[in-house]
Amino acid sequence: MIGIFDSGFGGLTVMKEYLKKYPEFDYMYLGDQANMPYGSHSKERLNKLVVQNVDFLVNKGCKLIIIACNTASADALRHVQNIYKGNPTILGVLVPAVENSLKETRFGNIGVIGTRGTINSNAYKREIEKYENDLYKPTDKRARESVKLYQQACPLLVPLVEEGLIKATVTRMILKNYLRPLKNAHIDTLILGCTHYPLLQKEITRIMGKNCKIISSAQAATYAIGSYFENHPDVLNLITRNGKRTYYTTDCPERFADLGKRFLGEVIVGEKVEI
Amino acid sequence: MIGIFDSGFGGLTVMKEYLKKYPEFDYMYLGDQANMPYGSHSKERLNKLVVQNVDFLVNKGCKLIIIACNTASADALRHVQNIYKGNPTILGVLVPAVENSLKETRFGNIGVIGTRGTINSNAYKREIEKYENDLYKPTDKRARESVKLYQQACPLLVPLVEEGLIKATVTRMILKNYLRPLKNAHIDTLILGCTHYPLLQKEITRIMGKNCKIISSAQAATYAIGSYFENHPDVLNLITRNGKRTYYTTDCPERFADLGKRFLGEVIVGEKVEI
Repeated sequence: MIGIFDSGFGGLTVMKEYLKKYPEFDYMYLGDQANMPYGSHSKERLNKLVVQNVDFLVNKGCKLIIIACNTASADALRHVQNIYKGNPTILGVLVPAVENSLKETRFGNIGVIGTRGTINSNAYKREIEKYENDLYKPTDKRARESVKLYQQACPLLVPLVEEGLIKATVTRMILKNYLRPLKNAHIDTLILGCTHYPLLQKEITRIMGKNCKIISSAQAATYAIGSYFENHPDVLNLITRNGKRTYYTTDCPERFADLGKRFLGEVIVGEKVEI
Repeated sequence: MIGIFDSGFGGLTVMKEYLKKYPEFDYMYLGDQANMPYGSHSKERLNKLVVQNVDFLVNKGCKLIIIACNTASADALRHVQNIYKGNPTILGVLVPAVENSLKETRFGNIGVIGTRGTINSNAYKREIEKYENDLYKPTDKRARESVKLYQQACPLLVPLVEEGLIKATVTRMILKNYLRPLKNAHIDTLILGCTHYPLLQKEITRIMGKNCKIISSAQAATYAIGSYFENHPDVLNLITRNGKRTYYTTDCPERFADLGKRFLGEVIVGEKVEI
């Protein structure tokens, strides 16, 4: 069984991509609504919450854990990986998007949008610098020697998406405002560094134009897991395959069901648990 | 000492009004940032958090507790009052605003705006019905026999205020959109049922027009405490008066300082505590 967790609903966009690619696997999803949004917590508190969630999923029998939240992947992944030491494997959604963006960028101008927590952590910058030498092979003759990352915090997008204002004029105005500095910087690749943002992908694509490649961390994480399984057939063999899906939430099941439908595109029932 | 708490910063608008009226009292403010926003919790969880906060303030020596959060006043005040049975006295910010609105309304059309949690709780409706017979004395000949309450959830206003977008065009658009049904219903009195909203009061007043009386629960609560003290001189005598102010936060002190300044209008330092 694969365990996936997030502070609420956003991680369901990651799960949606997984279900498309691996519908046969068993999945357990944990939405830690009681502590949402993760972006407003300190690093220490986030570490504590992430360890609690991993403990819960491991105790329920998950053999592979996906932290389907950029803020938690940015801040707490290393911490929890150090505690579990590979048993089970714990993966985030940040590195796959970074790898993908480095492969895609034509001349090295990469943008990333995320919550304030994700952007302030500077995690995308650190990971870009780490993987750049291996993966940055620009194809354009105007290309930079080394990648330049333009970061933009977009704290209002999560509440707008959760209010269902996907196509509203105000959302378009706020998006344009957030994306203007990135457009002015002529980025050729944009990472959607928050699991809520795929719901705004159409509008973001429209604003950024066809010359800017959009990378959703949900899609990137799903492709990355394919190559991970190739290199780790032992982990792949641990995953049970009955197409079973179980959902847990740490708070209000009604809201979980309501928003879950919007994010996953199907009706889900989350059992409430205390963690 | 008076203890005041909220899920974060909004309660500081209540404290600001208290400080204007009673600068000599000692105050202790607790911002439960780790669990913000309260509007996204279930009733059970909110009850638990509120009891924890009251315990903390009582153990620190507070003799009067103000729940400076509408969601918590709506959902959890009775619960925690039943536990403490008047020792210490625990007051909310909801009833004072209801009383004030019933005294002010000219023909019985009252509106209330708040978070989804506050509005869904239906607490304003319950309290209006409870106090209406005693306090509703309409002055206009078009007056209704009994009060009609128009409720409007405004979940985006808190994030907009916390982003500092007080005067932004998008905020004005979103406000107009939220307030339109209330304007169309010809309300003559509007309760700002969330402690963040006083920061938007100017714009709300501009949209609603001069014929609509705006009632901030922060101001109403401060006036209410005056008559409470008149009837309970024993409680008044318990409050120490050295003009001392202590601030605690359950998470990120930097953000507490940053937003605290915006809400209270002065620089504050919050000590981080685990509750």
